[in-house]
Amino acid sequence: MYDLAKELYPICRSITGNGVRETLAVVNKHIPLDISEVPTGTKVFDWVVPKEWNIKDAYIKDKSGNKIVDFKENNLHVVGYSQAVNDRLSLQELTPHLHTLPGKPDWVPYRTSYYDESWGFCLSHKQYLSLADDTYDVVIDSELSEGSLTLSEYVIPGETDREVLFSTHICHPSLANDNLSGIALLTYLAKELSVISTRYTYRFLFVPGTIGSISWLSLNENKAKNIDHGLVISCVGDEGGPTYKRSRRGNAPIDVAMEHVLRNSHLNGELEDFSPYGYDERQYCSPGFNLPVGLFERSKYGEYSEYHTSADDLSLISPQNLGESFQLVRSAIDILENNRKYLNLNGKCEPQLGRRGLYSAIGGDNEKANKQLAMLWILNQSDGNNSLLDIAVKANLSFSLVHETAVLLEEKGLIEEIEE
Amino acid sequence: MYDLAKELYPICRSITGNGVRETLAVVNKHIPLDISEVPTGTKVFDWVVPKEWNIKDAYIKDKSGNKIVDFKENNLHVVGYSQAVNDRLSLQELTPHLHTLPGKPDWVPYRTSYYDESWGFCLSHKQYLSLADDTYDVVIDSELSEGSLTLSEYVIPGETDREVLFSTHICHPSLANDNLSGIALLTYLAKELSVISTRYTYRFLFVPGTIGSISWLSLNENKAKNIDHGLVISCVGDEGGPTYKRSRRGNAPIDVAMEHVLRNSHLNGELEDFSPYGYDERQYCSPGFNLPVGLFERSKYGEYSEYHTSADDLSLISPQNLGESFQLVRSAIDILENNRKYLNLNGKCEPQLGRRGLYSAIGGDNEKANKQLAMLWILNQSDGNNSLLDIAVKANLSFSLVHETAVLLEEKGLIEEIEE
Amino acid sequence: MYDLAKELYPICRSITGNGVRETLAVVNKHIPLDISEVPTGTKVFDWVVPKEWNIKDAYIKDKSGNKIVDFKENNLHVVGYSQAVNDRLSLQELTPHLHTLPGKPDWVPYRTSYYDESWGFCLSHKQYLSLADDTYDVVIDSELSEGSLTLSEYVIPGETDREVLFSTHICHPSLANDNLSGIALLTYLAKELSVISTRYTYRFLFVPGTIGSISWLSLNENKAKNIDHGLVISCVGDEGGPTYKRSRRGNAPIDVAMEHVLRNSHLNGELEDFSPYGYDERQYCSPGFNLPVGLFERSKYGEYSEYHTSADDLSLISPQNLGESFQLVRSAIDILENNRKYLNLNGKCEPQLGRRGLYSAIGGDNEKANKQLAMLWILNQSDGNNSLLDIAVKANLSFSLVHETAVLLEEKGLIEEIEE
Repeated sequence: MYDLAKELYPICRSITGNGVRETLAVVNKHIPLDISEVPTGTKVFDWVVPKEWNIKDAYIKDKSGNKIVDFKENNLHVVGYSQAVNDRLSLQELTPHLHTLPGKPDWVPYRTSYYDESWGFCLSHKQYLSLADDTYDVVIDSELSEGSLTLSEYVIPGETDREVLFSTHICHPSLANDNLSGIALLTYLAKELSVISTRYTYRFLFVPGTIGSISWLSLNENKAKNIDHGLVISCVGDEGGPTYKRSRRGNAPIDVAMEHVLRNSHLNGELEDFSPYGYDERQYCSPGFNLPVGLFERSKYGEYSEYHTSADDLSLISPQNLGESFQLVRSAIDILENNRKYLNLNGKCEPQLGRRGLYSAIGGDNEKANKQLAMLWILNQSDGNNSLLDIAVKANLSFSLVHETAVLLEEKGLIEEIEE
Repeated sequence: MYDLAKELYPICRSITGNGVRETLAVVNKHIPLDISEVPTGTKVFDWVVPKEWNIKDAYIKDKSGNKIVDFKENNLHVVGYSQAVNDRLSLQELTPHLHTLPGKPDWVPYRTSYYDESWGFCLSHKQYLSLADDTYDVVIDSELSEGSLTLSEYVIPGETDREVLFSTHICHPSLANDNLSGIALLTYLAKELSVISTRYTYRFLFVPGTIGSISWLSLNENKAKNIDHGLVISCVGDEGGPTYKRSRRGNAPIDVAMEHVLRNSHLNGELEDFSPYGYDERQYCSPGFNLPVGLFERSKYGEYSEYHTSADDLSLISPQNLGESFQLVRSAIDILENNRKYLNLNGKCEPQLGRRGLYSAIGGDNEKANKQLAMLWILNQSDGNNSLLDIAVKANLSFSLVHETAVLLEEKGLIEEIEE
Repeated sequence: MYDLAKELYPICRSITGNGVRETLAVVNKHIPLDISEVPTGTKVFDWVVPKEWNIKDAYIKDKSGNKIVDFKENNLHVVGYSQAVNDRLSLQELTPHLHTLPGKPDWVPYRTSYYDESWGFCLSHKQYLSLADDTYDVVIDSELSEGSLTLSEYVIPGETDREVLFSTHICHPSLANDNLSGIALLTYLAKELSVISTRYTYRFLFVPGTIGSISWLSLNENKAKNIDHGLVISCVGDEGGPTYKRSRRGNAPIDVAMEHVLRNSHLNGELEDFSPYGYDERQYCSPGFNLPVGLFERSKYGEYSEYHTSADDLSLISPQNLGESFQLVRSAIDILENNRKYLNLNGKCEPQLGRRGLYSAIGGDNEKANKQLAMLWILNQSDGNNSLLDIAVKANLSFSLVHETAVLLEEKGLIEEIEE
C-alpha cells in the first residue's frame, strides 16, 4: 500500500483532468476499474459538472530569471483550478494571489478554487517574507475547457446483490494521508476481496470529492437501494485515531460493527456521531438517500496540523499504520459477512454441552473459558431477535470468537441459521 | 422592573383582599389587566374560595405603651390571615402566638395560616429574647369575612389561538424575590410582547398562589386545551441559578427550549426534573391537565436562606439579575415563535451553496464557519422530522443562528416550511 | 438460620443420593416439603437424569496404615461422583487423581465430575507437598447406580394463583455460604410466609443445581406460565455485596423491586445485568422460558476467594449477614405484595389536603415532610400508568413510605385502586 501511495504521490490531481486519469491508470494495474467520463455541463442533481482543468507548467521567476516558485517541484504551489496567466507583476500586484501559512512558516498550503475563476500560488511563509520588492514573471500554463469528469468503480459480485459500498476521493494532488492512503487501502482491499467468495457484493468507488460522489449518485440512483452498508475511507495512513464517524442513521449495522471493531482493537479508537461536514458521507447521508455509510479515518480530517499542507507528505504515513487501518476495515467486513441470526433449537433450559464434548469440566485456560461463555451467550440469546453481533456486544466478547463458536454450535446441531 | 418591584414592596398582599387589588392597580398602569372577582364560597374543583382577609393595623405594646412590634413598620410581623385580636396577655400567654427564626436571629419570618383560624405575630429572635416577663397589649385589627378572591389576566392575541401561558403568584406581602420579581418580569414581558406581532397568543396570569391557579383552571377549563407551552415565573431577581424545572411531560417543547436557552447562556444554569411541589406548576401539571408548563427561577424556592424571611427584601434583587432573567425568558419565546419544520427541497445530495453565494470558499472567521455548519445541518436534517430546535440541539449551535440561517435558506429557495 | 446451616453442614450432598434426602428431612422439620423422585434415565429436555451416587467411606492410607486423607473428616476430600476404588498405588500413579490449590496451600478444593466417570481426592497443597514418594492404599467405597434424583418444593397458596418463585440448590457438600446459606434463608422465609396471608402464591424449590431445575421445569412446564416474579438465592451468609443480577428481561418488576431495595439499603449493594452463567437462573431465563427470575447473592459466586474451597465453612457466614439478607428479600416481597396502581380521583388540580387533616401547615419534622412529599407524588402520578413502585423510584422515596401513604389516601377517598 505504501509503495502504491509513493507511486501516486507526484501526480497532480484535481477534481477533473488528466491527473485523475493517470492515477486511475496506476490503480488499474492492480484491479480492473470501470472508468467513465461525465461531460462538462452535465446536470447532476443541483450541480453541473464543471469544465475540465489541466495544467502543464507554472512558476514565478524573479528579475534574475530564477524560478523561485515552481509547480514542477511541488504541485501544491498552484491553487487548484487556476486560470492561465502570463504576466509581469510587481510584488504588490502579485501578493493578493499568494497563499501562505504564517503559523507554519515552512509549509506550503493546499488551496483550490473550483467554482470561482481566479488564479494563485501557494508558498511557504518563510519564502514569502524573503521576496524582494521587485517585479516577477508569473506563468500558469493551464487550460480550463469543455471536457469531462472521470468516475471509476470496481464491483466484486457476491452471493447476493445486496451491496457494501467503499468510497474514497481521488482529487487531491501531492498529499499522502488525505487521499493517497485511502486510494491505496481500497485498492488492496478490493484486490483481497476479489479472490475470496463473499456473501455481499462489494462496490469500490474512486471518485473526485463532492462532485464525484454527487455525479455517481445522480447517474446511479437506482443502485443506491442495494447498499446495505458502506464506508468512506480517508486519512488512514497516519498514526492518529482510529476514528469512526457514524452514519446519519446512527445505529446502522455498519455503525455497530465499526464500534465493535474499534472497542476490540488495542488502538485507542474514537467514535463520533454523524455530522454533515467531512468527506463524501455528506452526500451518501443526505436526507434523500440516508444510506448507512460511515467515515473511517485515523486522525480526523482538519484536526491534524499537517492537514492540507505540504507536510502531509509520504513521511506522515507508514506501512504499519496503513496495515493497521486495513486490518480494522477487514475485521468490519468479517463481521458484515458473518453476522447472522440463529435459533437455539433447545430453547427450554440449556442443552447438555458435556455430552457433546463442548464442556471442559475442570479448569481450562482463559481462551477456553471465553469460548464457554460464548456458547452460553449464543444459546441464551438466539431467540430470533439477536444477531451474532448483538450477542458479541452484549457479552463483551470478540465477534470472531462468537462467530467461530456459533459455527461449532451449528455443526453440533444446537442452533440453526434463521433465513431473513 | 426593579422600580416596579420597589413600588409594590410595601403593599400587604395575601391570597385575598385589598392588597392584591392595590397591586393589580399598579400593574394595570403598565398593561391592561382583565380583573375578576370569585366570591367566597365558590367551589373550585376540590377547594372552596375562602373568606376575604383585610387588615388595617396590628401591634404589640409593652407596659409603657411603646409599640414594640408594629405591622405598619413591616407587614411580615403579622401571620397572614390572622383573626382580629384585642387583648392584654402575659408573655407566657403571648408566646405560643409568636414566630421567630432562632437560626437567623435578626430576621423576621413570613408565616400564614389560611385555612386554620388563628392569629400570630412574627418577629426577630433577637427581639423575642429581649421581651420582659410582663403583660402586653395585643391588637390585630383585621377582618375575615365574605368577599372574593381576585384573579387577573392579560391576553395578547397572536396569529393563532394556540397559547403560551405565563403565570406568577401575587399573594406574598413584602417579599422581593419570592413574588415581586415575578410580577415585575411578567409585566414588562407582556408590555414588550403587546407591541410586536406574534404567532402564538400569550396569556399572562397574575393570581394568588395555589387557590388562584386552581380557581382560574376551574373557571377556564375549556381554555386549558389551547395551551401549547407555559412557564411559571418566580424568584427571578436574585443572582442564583438560573434554574429550570421541567414540566411533568419532561420533554415538551418548552422543556427542550428552556434547556437550550440555559445551556447557551453564559450563566451556569441548572435543570431539574418535574416534582409535584413548588409553585403553581403543581396545578397546571396535575394529572387531569398535564399541561406543558415548567418553572423558571434563579435560586430555587426554599433553598436560598432568605426565602420567606424579611431578608428577601429589595436588596436581594437587582436590576441586572432581573434583566438577565428577562432575557432568558425572551430567548425561550424567540424559540417558541420561530421553531418550525422545514423540508430540504434538494434532499438528494447537498445543493451547490457556492453558486448561490452561500459558501465562503477560502478561510472565513468563526461566525461564518458556524453559519456554514448551520446550513449543512439544516439541509441534512430537514427531512420532515426535525424542527429547527431539534437541529440546534443536535448540532450544538444556538437556536438564533439556526433560525437566521433557515430564513436565508428559505429565501434562496432551498428549504420550504412544512405546515403542521 | 445459622443453626440450621450448622446442622446441615456435615452432610455429604451431591446432585443425587442420600445426602440430599437427609438434608430435605431436616428442612422438612421446619416446613412441609413435597418431595419427589425422578428415576435415573428420565429424559428432561436435552438432559437425562444420571445414575444416583452414594458414598460410605473414602481414604488414602500411607504405608504405616495412617489415614492421611479421610472422607469422614471432611467430605470435600472426595471428588463428587467418584467411582469406587480399592487399590495400592505409587505416588506417581496417585498424583493425577489429586486436586489442590497451589495459590491457597492450606485449603482443600471442592471438585465434582458428574458426567465423566472418574475418581479423585482433594487435599491441601501443603499436605500434597509433604507426601512421601511411596505407595498408598486408596479406597473409595462409593456406588453409582440406577436410582433417582430428588426434587422438593413447598407451595404457599395466596389470594391468586400468580406465583413468586424462590429457588436454591441443595447439591453442595460441606460448603456454608455457597448453598447452606440459601437453604437456611429460604426455609425461614417460607416459614414466615406460611403464617401470613399473601396476594401471591409462593413456590419454594429446593433442588440440585442445573439438573434439578431442568428436571423441575421439564416436569412442570405448565406451571411456569404462572410465575410473575422469582429469585434464585445463593451465597447469602457472607458479608460481601449484596448483589442482584437482573433477570434476562432486564426490567421485570422483580428487577425494579430489587434495585429499589438495594438502593434504599444502608448496605452498598451492587447491580449486574443478566449473564447466562451463574446458578439456576440460567435455566429459568433460558429463551424458551425467559422467566422474570433474578439472582440474589451477597458476594458474587466465583469471585470470593473461599468459593468452592474448604474455607467456605461456617466461619464465613454469620447470623447477622443471614439476617440482613433475609430482610432484603423480605422487603422485595413487601413490594411485590403491595405494588398496585391507583387512580387519583381529583385529577384536576391538587385536592385540598388541609381540610382532610393531611397537611401539617407549619413546619414538621423530616418524616412528616417525606410523607407530605409522598402524598403529592402519589396524587400527581396516579394517572393509571404508574404503580406505587414506579412512583417510589421517581420520587426517590422508600416504597414502604409510599405504600403507607397510599393506604392513607385511599382511606380518605382520594385515590382508588385500579384492578388489573
